[in-house]
Order: sequence, then structure tokens, then C-alpha cells
Amino acid sequence: MSKPIIKKPFFVFNPKSYLYGNALLELANVADHLAEKYPISIFVTAPFADLSAISKSTSKIIVTAQHMDGIEPGRGMGQVLPESLHYAGARATFLNHAEHPMTLSNLSKAIIQAQKLGVLTIACADSTQEAKAIAELKPDIILCEPTDLIGTGKTSDENYINETNEAVKGIDSEILVMQAAGISTANDVFRTIELGADGTGCTSGIVKNQDPKQMLIDMVEAAMHAANTQ
Amino acid sequence: MSKPIIKKPFFVFNPKSYLYGNALLELANVADHLAEKYPISIFVTAPFADLSAISKSTSKIIVTAQHMDGIEPGRGMGQVLPESLHYAGARATFLNHAEHPMTLSNLSKAIIQAQKLGVLTIACADSTQEAKAIAELKPDIILCEPTDLIGTGKTSDENYINETNEAVKGIDSEILVMQAAGISTANDVFRTIELGADGTGCTSGIVKNQDPKQMLIDMVEAAMHAANTQ
Amino acid sequence: MSKPIIKKPFFVFNPKSYLYGNALLELANVADHLAEKYPISIFVTAPFADLSAISKSTSKIIVTAQHMDGIEPGRGMGQVLPESLHYAGARATFLNHAEHPMTLSNLSKAIIQAQKLGVLTIACADSTQEAKAIAELKPDIILCEPTDLIGTGKTSDENYINETNEAVKGIDSEILVMQAAGISTANDVFRTIELGADGTGCTSGIVKNQDPKQMLIDMVEAAMHAANTQ
Amino acid sequence: MSKPIIKKPFFVFNPKSYLYGNALLELANVADHLAEKYPISIFVTAPFADLSAISKSTSKIIVTAQHMDGIEPGRGMGQVLPESLHYAGARATFLNHAEHPMTLSNLSKAIIQAQKLGVLTIACADSTQEAKAIAELKPDIILCEPTDLIGTGKTSDENYINETNEAVKGIDSEILVMQAAGISTANDVFRTIELGADGTGCTSGIVKNQDPKQMLIDMVEAAMHAANTQ
Repeated sequence: MSKPIIKKPFFVFNPKSYLYGNALLELANVADHLAEKYPISIFVTAPFADLSAISKSTSKIIVTAQHMDGIEPGRGMGQVLPESLHYAGARATFLNHAEHPMTLSNLSKAIIQAQKLGVLTIACADSTQEAKAIAELKPDIILCEPTDLIGTGKTSDENYINETNEAVKGIDSEILVMQAAGISTANDVFRTIELGADGTGCTSGIVKNQDPKQMLIDMVEAAMHAANTQ
Repeated sequence: MSKPIIKKPFFVFNPKSYLYGNALLELANVADHLAEKYPISIFVTAPFADLSAISKSTSKIIVTAQHMDGIEPGRGMGQVLPESLHYAGARATFLNHAEHPMTLSNLSKAIIQAQKLGVLTIACADSTQEAKAIAELKPDIILCEPTDLIGTGKTSDENYINETNEAVKGIDSEILVMQAAGISTANDVFRTIELGADGTGCTSGIVKNQDPKQMLIDMVEAAMHAANTQ
Repeated sequence: MSKPIIKKPFFVFNPKSYLYGNALLELANVADHLAEKYPISIFVTAPFADLSAISKSTSKIIVTAQHMDGIEPGRGMGQVLPESLHYAGARATFLNHAEHPMTLSNLSKAIIQAQKLGVLTIACADSTQEAKAIAELKPDIILCEPTDLIGTGKTSDENYINETNEAVKGIDSEILVMQAAGISTANDVFRTIELGADGTGCTSGIVKNQDPKQMLIDMVEAAMHAANTQ
Repeated sequence: MSKPIIKKPFFVFNPKSYLYGNALLELANVADHLAEKYPISIFVTAPFADLSAISKSTSKIIVTAQHMDGIEPGRGMGQVLPESLHYAGARATFLNHAEHPMTLSNLSKAIIQAQKLGVLTIACADSTQEAKAIAELKPDIILCEPTDLIGTGKTSDENYINETNEAVKGIDSEILVMQAAGISTANDVFRTIELGADGTGCTSGIVKNQDPKQMLIDMVEAAMHAANTQ
């Protein structure tokens, strides 16, 4: 099946397990309006059981799972079935996040299953070496996030961004590179895109903000602004 | 929050990851009619992303997740958030299934979270010793399934059923005991309830049957019949 | 096979993966002299591949593995084989430490294998509820260590110690209870034994001390002193 | 530190957890004689706690661990410390075996630690795609073993051997490729080397043989013979 086309720069709103139900739905709807207004791809993640509701309520965002297992329909009790995610409307999934590390074997199989179903894959690496290994598995996006920086409010510097871009695109020039370490303000978003990331995203900078909707709007507009100045 | 009341004997239709989408929904609707017709609790499991659709389409069955993590809203990227399952309509969850074994710590926390949300817990043990350990965590139901028998078509014998019943209820008499090893025919269901199990259930005996709907009906009616003869 | 007899109060020197080779051997020899001098059981843990050397060089300490899997000789590539540990001289093992959490199934099987081989088991719990579940598996010692306190320098308070003692011994009065949260000085050791722990132990308070040998001596003597004042 | 030099074709005797203690030591000594007699590298794996004894008793074989974690000295309770393995005499380690799959992150870090210590790495892949990903991490040897064939007695065919050789050496021509699926006779060893594998190895074909010593000798000599006919 055909996958969604990614319009660069892309922005990922990843509320992890901070949000569910109505609170998540409201922010997904804000993101949906932004994805209609601007020529930019916006991914919104949701807990597995929320994917269906988010998908039914939106039409422009790319509804994204937080994880997916590399299994086919069968036993797999308690695992995350790709077909079920796709049926619920998910069109992308994170894989191998530092909070849910995958075995190489499961990661490899999950990318193959996603490809068959038309689900975009965002695979996480916490070093340039890992990013190169993952690039051989041909996901759509690699998130290069030095684990040490997660939650510190420090963003990846220019050297790291250039190094990972070169490492990944040297293996497969079609893979997009996402940089999201320490994004906590709209200015971080602007700077990261300006430095050469294909996309970026945010969790706590939005969900812990006093006004999450406004911060989401500001960040998406900062990504647009950075793209226009390039 | 209050949990559903379990009417004995209960029956668990657990299609694992064999089914999703419409095929699963149709069987869930059959189960819902049976749960209306008979004074028996019927649990139907679904992949996480299918829970919401099953829940919206049914009213009598107990919609059941295949797994749940012992986390609270927060980071937990890729994990199975209890609040999200409950919001989607799940009122029960399996825990520690042999195909998704949990650490003792995660199992313990998941049972606590489920209790807070009013979600019933079906915790799996593959020996009498494990069943006793789990009984101290006070789940609602313990599934005593000797791992060696899963998928073999051999049911637990009377000794094993008595032994696990005594072991579990000796620790907490309110915990229900489910026996489901090797249930492949309606007669297996009848015999297992007759031998003293509080409930039973089935996966491949239904999903791999030529006529899954009829087999589901037959099994639920066999459970009823066994209850009436006691 | 017969297990070593535990002389109370016991002390566990657990250098985790901080030490290996000669540095570890020297401290193990210090512990061996103390175990000869005082009527107290001293457990010394070592990385798996160091167990043999420690065992050959000592005679009074109880050489202890950091983990063991619940397997029998066979495939199990990369797992920690009980028979191999025992052959190398280990006579005790930690299980389910917060840095290496075990599935309930593996934990249950490991305790059974250890019992067969005459290897003492020290199983870790991070809540009273978990301690009760583990007590049903009948390990020799339960380490009750609220995970939140590990590495903070805060010790468990009297309430927690009493509560876990009662919870564990209420299920099986022969299980010993170890309390080791936040032990960083000899005084912490004294106080913890005085408050009713059957034993205690230490990692960073010793290995990060300027004079690890002296701190080890001081702690063991504090345990002796506490025992004598009871 | 400098790593051992690998003399092709190499042979890996991998008794997994089938053997420990004296039974393992005797076969390791047989392998040591063979490694002296023939210009071939012989790796012999051992459970962690047996490594030290095997290493002390042999001088020509490459003593090999079954697994190693990507950690540095520090906490890591229950994990497999690289420094401890090296101190015990291990000069190689398997990584990511199908019976002990590793997260990509742990695998990547383990290869880096091994490199620092002068420990050879044999990393397992169960598909060509995985082999390519692992090749980017630059282990010394990649074992290409279609998981489905493990223990079936079926060997990899010529196509699979050529395909994996090209895939791996296309990324890094210095990485050696091991093929070991279904090796159960000396003739399997001969044929696999003849078809182009840099090395091969065996578990159950040796340990379950009536005369394991003779089978070990026959297999090593078959590898030599295949090398001489090339």
C-alpha cells in the first residue's frame, strides 16, 4: 500500500504517555488545522488505544503509533500488531525509542511489515554508529537523538547534525533525518531546521507548557519560518 | 472506579493477534449476543488499537486488552498506558501471558493501576508455584496454564485443576481460577468447568475452526450447560 | 546438595560491576579474614567470570553471583547457567535486582534450580507487595529495597523495615529479610541491624570510599556490634 | 589492546549451555591440540563462570564468551561485564545470538567495548538485511544463520551463502562471514567452507554425538581439508 508523502520540514508532536483521551484529541485537532494551513507534514503520536479516535477526528495529520512489533497476524499475545494499527488509522510508527528499545531482529522485521502496509517508520538511534546500522534497514526517517540529551533541554549542535546527516544519507540519500534532542522552545525548532535537520519534534516542551496549544502552534510556525529562510 | 462484576462460569474468547478489524468485530458481536442471552460473563480480547471499535459496537461483553504496563501517564513511550486502555473502553486486561512475560515489578504495578481504574486483571501463571506468588498480588483472575500444554490440544487434568484451585484460594478465596490449557472443543469447555474451574477460554480452537462463530456459540453454551449441572 | 548455613546478622558486600580482577580479589580476601574472625556470614558478589578466582582464593565468605537464569543444561546460549556458577564455587546468587529485573517465570525457575544445587538465593523486591509475592517462591533471603532509595543515601525507616519483616515472615518465617537501601556509613549498618533487619549490605559506600578496605572492616564490625547489643 | 589474528578457515565449537566444568574442559583441551596441529583458528565458547578454567588450561584456542553487555565498569548488577570476561581470559564473544537477542543499542556498545579490550566479536544475524545493519557496526565476524534453520539439520544453501557474503563484504570487506546453520556432520563442514564461508561451527552435532571428541576432530579436519582443496 502507498505511504503518505512527507512534506519537508516535518514536525512531530510526540506526547508519549503524557496525554490520552480528550486532552490528546484537542491537541491533535489543533495540529490538524496547522497541517491544513501550512505545507508541512505533522506527525502526532498517540497511545495505541487512542489511535482510532485521533484518526477519525482528523484528516491532515499523520497519525503515528509509539511502537510496533515486527509480527504478522497469529499468536503474538500482548504484542503490537501492525495490521491492527493500520486498521485503526495509523500511517506511521516510531520504532526503537530509547524508552522502548527493540532487538535488532524485531526492528528489522517491523520495518519490513510497515513497508508492506504503507506505514511510515521513524526509527531512533542514539549514536551515529547506530544511525548507520539502522540506515541499512531503510526506514523512512531516522531520529538521531543522543540519549544523554533527552530531557535536558540541550539541543544537538551543528557538528552532530552534520555528522548524522552525512552518515545516514551516505548510505541511503532518501532517508530523512530528524533531530529532536532538547527541543523546548519555538526558537530551538527554528534553529534545528536551519542547521539542516529534515524535521524535528517535541514532547515535554509542549505537554508541560502552560499553554500547550499555543506552543504547538508556535513550534510548527517556527519550522515553516525556518524552511522559508533556507 | 468500580469494576465489572464477574458472573460465573466466565468464558474468555482470546483471539490473540490472529484477528483484527472487521473479522474480529463480527465475532465480538456474536459474543455480545451470547452475553445478553446467558447469565455468564464473556471476555473478548482485542489488539490495543481495536479496543475502541469493539467497545463502541458492544455492550454486554467485557472488552479485554492483551497486556497493560504498570505505568502512570508520563514518559513511557511505546508502553501500554492503563488510562488509554480504559478510555477506549477496556474493562479487563491479561497480564504476564507466556507470549508476553512481565517482570514481577511491572506485573505488580500493573495490578495496582488496574485496581485504581476499575479494570479487571487476568494474570497468567505457568506453575502452581507462580500462581501462589501471583495470588499475593491480588489479581481478579489467575489463569493457570502449564506452558508446556499451550497449543497441544491437551487439557489440564483434574489433579492440576484441584491443586491450583487450592493453592490460589488458600491465599485469597476471592480470586477466580481460569483453566484454559488445550481447550479445543465444546466438550473440553464442559469438562473443564465441571472439574471445578471458575472459567475457561479459547484461542485457536475458535479462530482456526471452519466456522468460528458456531464454535464460539457452542463453547459458551457448553460452559452454561456445565454450570447448570453443578 | 546442602546450602551454606547463614549466621545472623549477615553482611553482603556487593561491588556490582564496579570491580573485577585483582581489585576485587583483594577486597574479597579482606572479607574472608573478617568472616574468619567474626561469627557472621559475609556474602561477596562478583561478575560471573570472576567467581572462580574469588572462590579459589577464599574459604570463609559465601561467593555470590549477581544473577542466575532459571535454566537447566541445554541450549540457553548467553544465559547464566546455574551449574556453571556452582562449579565455579558460587554458593549464593542475587535474583531480580532492580538493575536486572526478571520475569516472574524465570525468577520462579531460578529459585528451584538454586535449591537443587545448594545455592542460596537473595531475591530483590521493591515494595512490600512484591516481597510477599516472592516469599511464596521461598528464596532464602529477600532484599526489600524501595527502588526510589537506591543510590540516594537515604536508608529505609523503621516503619518500612517492620512492615516488610512482618509481610515476609508472615508467609514464611524462615525467610531472612535484608535491608540495604542507602547504606553508606558504618552507622547506617549498625542502625539497620538494630532496627530489626536480619542482614544488610553495601555497594557504593565501599567501592567509592577513599579506603574501601577500611570501610568494609568498619561496616562488618558495626554489624557485629549491633548484633551484640540486641 | 591487540586482538587475536584469525586464521581462515576458522571453526567454532559452541557447546552453549550443554556443557560446563570437566566435561567442557576435556573437549576444550582436544580443541587446543587441534589448534596446535593445524593452521586454523578454533573458537571454543563456555558459560561465563567456566571461562577462567578453560583459559588457564589451554593456549591455542580462542576462548569465547556466549554474550557480553555493552557496559563499562560501574553499576550494571547482573550484566556481563567486558572487563571481567577479558580478565578471565576470553578473547572473543558472541553477540546477539537468537537465544539471547540484543537491543541494537546494547549490541552497538558491546562492539565498541570489545574493540577497546582486544576482544573479537562474532555478531549473529538471521537475515541478509540484519547482516547489513550489523556490518555497519564493524564486528570481526558475522554469523549469518537463518533462524528457521537452527536445530533442523538443514544447512544454508549456496545462494544464501553467496548473498550474505556479498551483502556483508560489500559494506566492509574485512568482516569475516560464518555460516553455521544445520551443521551436523563433518561433510556439512567441508561443504560449507567449500561454498565460500570464511568459517563455520557446531553445537548439537558435537555435544549430542556418541563420541563428541571424535566428531570435533573430524569437523576441524574437514574444515582443513576444504581449505586445502580451494
